[in-house]
Amino acid sequence: MRRQRNGKEPPLERAAGNGMLNRRVFLEGAFVAATGTAGVGATTARAEPLAVPRWMKEPGAALTAYGQPSGFEGKVVRSVPPPPNPATVGIGTARTPLQLLDGMITPNGLHFDRSHSGTPDIDPDQHRLLIHGLVKRPLLFTLEALARYPMESRIAFIECAGNSGALNSAQAQPGNAQGIHGLLSCAEWTGVRLATLLEEAGVEAGAQWVVAEGADAAAMSRSVPLAKCMDDALVCLYQNGERVRPSNGYPIRLLLPGFEGNMNVKWLRRLKLTAAPVMAKDETSKYTVLLPDGKAWQFVFPMEVKSIITRPSPGLALKGPGFYEISGLAWSGKGRIRQVEVSADGGKSWASAALQEPVLPKALTRFRAAWEWNGGPALLQSRATDDTGMVQPTRAQFVADRGLRGQYHYNAIASWRIDEKGEASNALA
Amino acid sequence: MRRQRNGKEPPLERAAGNGMLNRRVFLEGAFVAATGTAGVGATTARAEPLAVPRWMKEPGAALTAYGQPSGFEGKVVRSVPPPPNPATVGIGTARTPLQLLDGMITPNGLHFDRSHSGTPDIDPDQHRLLIHGLVKRPLLFTLEALARYPMESRIAFIECAGNSGALNSAQAQPGNAQGIHGLLSCAEWTGVRLATLLEEAGVEAGAQWVVAEGADAAAMSRSVPLAKCMDDALVCLYQNGERVRPSNGYPIRLLLPGFEGNMNVKWLRRLKLTAAPVMAKDETSKYTVLLPDGKAWQFVFPMEVKSIITRPSPGLALKGPGFYEISGLAWSGKGRIRQVEVSADGGKSWASAALQEPVLPKALTRFRAAWEWNGGPALLQSRATDDTGMVQPTRAQFVADRGLRGQYHYNAIASWRIDEKGEASNALA
Repeated sequence: MRRQRNGKEPPLERAAGNGMLNRRVFLEGAFVAATGTAGVGATTARAEPLAVPRWMKEPGAALTAYGQPSGFEGKVVRSVPPPPNPATVGIGTARTPLQLLDGMITPNGLHFDRSHSGTPDIDPDQHRLLIHGLVKRPLLFTLEALARYPMESRIAFIECAGNSGALNSAQAQPGNAQGIHGLLSCAEWTGVRLATLLEEAGVEAGAQWVVAEGADAAAMSRSVPLAKCMDDALVCLYQNGERVRPSNGYPIRLLLPGFEGNMNVKWLRRLKLTAAPVMAKDETSKYTVLLPDGKAWQFVFPMEVKSIITRPSPGLALKGPGFYEISGLAWSGKGRIRQVEVSADGGKSWASAALQEPVLPKALTRFRAAWEWNGGPALLQSRATDDTGMVQPTRAQFVADRGLRGQYHYNAIASWRIDEKGEASNALA
Repeated sequence: MRRQRNGKEPPLERAAGNGMLNRRVFLEGAFVAATGTAGVGATTARAEPLAVPRWMKEPGAALTAYGQPSGFEGKVVRSVPPPPNPATVGIGTARTPLQLLDGMITPNGLHFDRSHSGTPDIDPDQHRLLIHGLVKRPLLFTLEALARYPMESRIAFIECAGNSGALNSAQAQPGNAQGIHGLLSCAEWTGVRLATLLEEAGVEAGAQWVVAEGADAAAMSRSVPLAKCMDDALVCLYQNGERVRPSNGYPIRLLLPGFEGNMNVKWLRRLKLTAAPVMAKDETSKYTVLLPDGKAWQFVFPMEVKSIITRPSPGLALKGPGFYEISGLAWSGKGRIRQVEVSADGGKSWASAALQEPVLPKALTRFRAAWEWNGGPALLQSRATDDTGMVQPTRAQFVADRGLRGQYHYNAIASWRIDEKGEASNALA
């Protein structure tokens, strides 16, 4: 598969060390002009016509009411670690196979799931949403009532606060993109602006927080600043067009764009306006950021600017020297991605990646960069910058600030080591 | 559920006749200020705390590898008319339930399907794509080879050329949004630019067309202008993040943004460069636009500017007078949607609808308008304008130009009649 060149072809323009190419390689003509005949992966066709395969000799399968993936894609699934206790099969995580996907949308069947007491089987006709506490008029909503309000849609990522927690380690742990970073997904969410409902309820003076409670057996609860609820929060009924999936909060999920996943309360049943946070289990014993001096930050809400390379990555071995697209995802809970840079030499030099349009605030952004692997060792990294100017820290900076005892909000630059066989592995660099 | 007003509340600002409201009703404060206490659908909560439902008293369901919709959403499925011949269960259409969805993305399980010989069960390891004909170097691609090329993603609608064909009728036929307009979906597609592959093959002088052939038993084939292939065509491997679904072309689908659905060849196996179109069955005996004088337009590729109201629509009865959001979809195969207007009086007066961002070229755009139903008869219509300046024609204009004998490219303004019970039905107006 090595690229063949002849004397007439211009060399591919370099953008950084160890084979990073100028992203203009993607523009019309430049790539092919430089790579020549059977540039990346094609082989010259020697036999025509094509053989007629079995499936062209028989009628195809019937039309179906609800489609499913091909049986040949059976490995493209969420990873579900075995539960520590066989009685708690609903507690834990199901991680998105990021290394096997492309684009920015996560299909609903593969959206990550972090559940604290399993997925409740909620009858939508019986489900209610109550808004109460420091309001002029406590309100009760059926699903049918909610569906009558004006809707909004937005494409938004959700990332578990504990995502990439495996990198809080002094030694590199084995793991692939799914295992390390797979508590991250992105969907088009549609629902009613929470501000509309709160305005109807009438917010009392003194209300500063909104406690959101889920209808799972854990009654998972979080305190949300009122300001966020009045800004861009949505009470979601739809996920990528259809009703929210059970493991993602059916029939109602709170969406707090950019805030840590846990706060986007699933199976939403209650919003109570209060003067102060309620200090729920999941904002005291969990979801706080432990610091080196033993103190902890509480109420760290937005997920910080971050990026990961999804291809190449562990499990997707390179097939010999030559051209590869480095592809990955960048996001920020504070706004839009402004820039992503990619390094093949562990951060010594950086090339600017192409950002796939549309680049939306608080959504995943797909980036792509061009790389010519020379067959030697490489250390692949990506570094994102958001439109507030925040830059993803190096691991050294992150560890100096936070230490390694934390479990949440890890956003340092991540690394994949490529060995001479083309195998990728997790590295701490 | 009728809105309650007291003397202090400002009236909702009118934008057009028969209850169309100014879309500023959506902006903060205006809606609630005008609608008062229990504005749209909420009821004042009388009982606190909420009863604890059954599903909060027991552990929830286990985490799963690949998620599915709630069992309570069993009616949200594609409609599959019975085949005229029981031996041809794979031939026909599966229509998207547009009236039950929101946002612009169609989830993969509900993307419409039009198949000419059923869905083949293709082994991706055996599948090949051949590029040949008037090229310097015929090329053969495995899936693995294709996956090494630079990728692009774009959110694009696909609409069957025969969509809305039921409106080519002198009498209004019964039908809902799904049955009449459901050969329409939108997904994020990711793949390799066809231009990249053609440049690598080397286009010979004289090549003007590219014949695309599918690997189904029909070998469904269409001739595509070379210029389109060099512009924005994608050889797609991914649909909403995961591999293309079987009924949508697994493992490879050709995407020709904006062109009639049939040309976006599924199960793509061959691209032959030619000097002239091959006059395939599906561009001669079908997919031509029959005119009143008995002549037909051949090779009408882009789907023209169009819009439909998905809510309210047949099957979704209004629940009494009061506020409703009118929601729908607009699109153009020639560019971006610039404006959508909505009428509640059969086109006598029009209100401007809000367009959901991002408004992307050749993608579905969700529009929303505010309406106060007075309980009387109404005739709901939407009218889209694209950024080339094309405006959706009235039905009268369309019929004057095309007659009613055609089956394809119907894009006239569509109407739902609302009766005094709040029931919606298809109307020709």
